[in-house]
Amino acid sequence: MKREVYNEMVKKALCYYEKAGIALTDEEKANIEVADFGLDDVENTGLELVVYINCDRYCAKEMVLLPHQTCPEHKHITVGSQEGKQETFRCRYGKVYLYTEGEAQEKPAITPPEGAYTVFHETVLLPGQQYTIMPGTKHWFSAGDEGAVISEFSTHSDDATDIFTDERIKRLPEIEEE
Amino acid sequence: MKREVYNEMVKKALCYYEKAGIALTDEEKANIEVADFGLDDVENTGLELVVYINCDRYCAKEMVLLPHQTCPEHKHITVGSQEGKQETFRCRYGKVYLYTEGEAQEKPAITPPEGAYTVFHETVLLPGQQYTIMPGTKHWFSAGDEGAVISEFSTHSDDATDIFTDERIKRLPEIEEE
Repeated sequence: MKREVYNEMVKKALCYYEKAGIALTDEEKANIEVADFGLDDVENTGLELVVYINCDRYCAKEMVLLPHQTCPEHKHITVGSQEGKQETFRCRYGKVYLYTEGEAQEKPAITPPEGAYTVFHETVLLPGQQYTIMPGTKHWFSAGDEGAVISEFSTHSDDATDIFTDERIKRLPEIEEE
Repeated sequence: MKREVYNEMVKKALCYYEKAGIALTDEEKANIEVADFGLDDVENTGLELVVYINCDRYCAKEMVLLPHQTCPEHKHITVGSQEGKQETFRCRYGKVYLYTEGEAQEKPAITPPEGAYTVFHETVLLPGQQYTIMPGTKHWFSAGDEGAVISEFSTHSDDATDIFTDERIKRLPEIEEE
């Protein structure tokens, strides 16, 4: 992702944290993470986030999905004795369209961006509503027209155990300086 | 605690969740927990909370301290192979005065209510600021004039492993119906 694109996404994300009434420190604002999952199409496949705490025992972050932005399908696997990540999404602002394994929605509200999407059990989360995703469960999520801010409460977060359905995806891409 | 007192504290707490811009479902609003720690002086020694998730692996809640309300001194101990609770407090609204083990503040900003208080290392948290309390560390916290809303991200929460300095304290008192 180009630095210019990164800066633009951060600027937009900060508006959503503000709309959601979420206070961030200056240091957090200066270090917003923008994930483009290596697809270089961050407006469609991407996510902005602030990690508050990620220790061995638990993790908490707050994520922004800009309007129509999608976090692509993945699951958190168990590796050896380390049980896969369990996570609870709580909608703070906007509307979250969450897709998980289970009976597929006949006409899903969201058409995912170009990529590999195989699960279509639809749950819509409004502010104050939440949903817990158990380890090993494929999921992806997207925002509607108004964007969304989502809290994630979970076990330790470790990108290495995220398995994406789309094999092109790599997490934590570097920002390309001009 | 009398039902009338409980209802009054809930009403006040709901104002603070609203001031903090925190969306709660109707079910959550109808089930706000009010802790008076068995001292029957909830305006001084007390806490209001909503537990979002408390599973084996992690816990997340959002707590209200009304102006000058104090959560009394306690620690989370290790029992057998179960390591003590670790928790991260994040101030969402108002100002949190947190006291932990360590060098005592010469003139603490807060005078604790009647009870047993032995640690006075002072940390003040403004909105967006946070602090992590390690297992076994004594701590207590209070709000200033404007009250406070605090997120707590932690390992599993289990009142049975909370050890209060004031031996009179018991957690989870029942509401007395008239």
